[in-house]
Amino acid sequence: MIGVFDSGLGGLTVVKELLERIPQFKILYFGDTARTPYGTKSAETVTRYAIENTNFLLEKGAKIIVVACHTVSSTAIPELKKHFKGIPFFEVVTPSFKKALRLTKNKKIGLIGTRTTVESGIYQRLFMEADLQIKLYTNPAPLLVPLIEEGWLKKPETRSIVKKYLIPLKLRGIDTLILACTHYPILKNIIAEKAGKRVKLVDPSEEVAEEVANYIASNTDLKKHLEPDGEPEIWVSDLTPNFENIAQMFLRRKVKLNKLLW
Amino acid sequence: MIGVFDSGLGGLTVVKELLERIPQFKILYFGDTARTPYGTKSAETVTRYAIENTNFLLEKGAKIIVVACHTVSSTAIPELKKHFKGIPFFEVVTPSFKKALRLTKNKKIGLIGTRTTVESGIYQRLFMEADLQIKLYTNPAPLLVPLIEEGWLKKPETRSIVKKYLIPLKLRGIDTLILACTHYPILKNIIAEKAGKRVKLVDPSEEVAEEVANYIASNTDLKKHLEPDGEPEIWVSDLTPNFENIAQMFLRRKVKLNKLLW
Repeated sequence: MIGVFDSGLGGLTVVKELLERIPQFKILYFGDTARTPYGTKSAETVTRYAIENTNFLLEKGAKIIVVACHTVSSTAIPELKKHFKGIPFFEVVTPSFKKALRLTKNKKIGLIGTRTTVESGIYQRLFMEADLQIKLYTNPAPLLVPLIEEGWLKKPETRSIVKKYLIPLKLRGIDTLILACTHYPILKNIIAEKAGKRVKLVDPSEEVAEEVANYIASNTDLKKHLEPDGEPEIWVSDLTPNFENIAQMFLRRKVKLNKLLW
Repeated sequence: MIGVFDSGLGGLTVVKELLERIPQFKILYFGDTARTPYGTKSAETVTRYAIENTNFLLEKGAKIIVVACHTVSSTAIPELKKHFKGIPFFEVVTPSFKKALRLTKNKKIGLIGTRTTVESGIYQRLFMEADLQIKLYTNPAPLLVPLIEEGWLKKPETRSIVKKYLIPLKLRGIDTLILACTHYPILKNIIAEKAGKRVKLVDPSEEVAEEVANYIASNTDLKKHLEPDGEPEIWVSDLTPNFENIAQMFLRRKVKLNKLLW
């Protein structure tokens, strides 16, 4: 099984991309809806939660772990790899960084994400190591997650808030924008419109799914341990009627949520 | 000590009102910032968290417990009283209900709150038992908490979203509006403006503080057990630099946050 976890349900955008690429392998998803969101919490607390979530997936039989949460990918990966030696981890930061590096022509890259992701400084470090000429401009966009979870996808207030977050990045002349939160692809149309035609978007869900699919394709031994069953199994730490609507929005199909017993 | 807890830092509006009325008694506050917000989570999960928070305050020496969270007050009080027999509990729903009952003239009352508070139906039950002629109109207003925590107190988007939440209530001709979330008093000016001059607001923080002050005044025995020390002691389950700004906004003064060790 391919284990995937996120702070909540936003990571289902990654499951959707995985299903399009490798529908033949069973996916086990965990959304930590009882403690969501992570993006306003400290790196220390986020790391503690990430270890617990990984434990849950491994106990249920996952053979590889996909961290479908930008906040966890920005702050907790070294600790996760240390804690779970030998387990292959995939995260959303590295493939997004690589894609932006390939896309940019003028070497001015923008990034929006949660406060904890932006403050982690991980993208700054990666771009600096790769190419000293790249300028990265970041802006935390913390209101987008609640707007998306409320389903306010076409409201004028959402358009106006997206515009407000992008103005300082546009003023810098970016030609590439990293959507550094698994929720944001849901607002891709508005973000693309407000960013302008000259700005190319990097969607982390597509990038990590591509990476996982390539890894599995080239790893015959692993393939044997991934059960061939397309129906994803979705677990949450808390369940309300509203969560099923949100899950459907991200996955673009009806879905049954299983609640963890404490 | 007077123990006060909330899902996060919004309950500091209650601490502020307590300090104005009974500054002579020590207040111990716990904000569950590692699991905030509660208002989008299920009643079952909220109850579990409320029991853990109460345990923490009692172990630290609290003699009475003030539930400064509307979501907990709406869903978990019977369970808390059963679990902690003999401990005096104060919550924000009953005094807000009583105040609205006194204020309304046309018996049309409006309420905004989190989704879990609104869906609990507790206000509907209380008003129905008190006066069958009262009509209660409710609207969940889940985006107000993130807007407040981002400090977007005067932005046009905030004004527009407040207006959107109040329109269906205004159309019903309400003359009283319950702010059923401890965050909302921070937006009292905008809410009052958008609700219109004829609508009186009920602020739960003022109402519960009044009730606690009266209870302590009439309870000589309890007074002996409340240490006379005006400086509140504030604990949180997670700490980021941003939380100190938020705390200051609610308490209207500089404040030191102590982080719980796990």
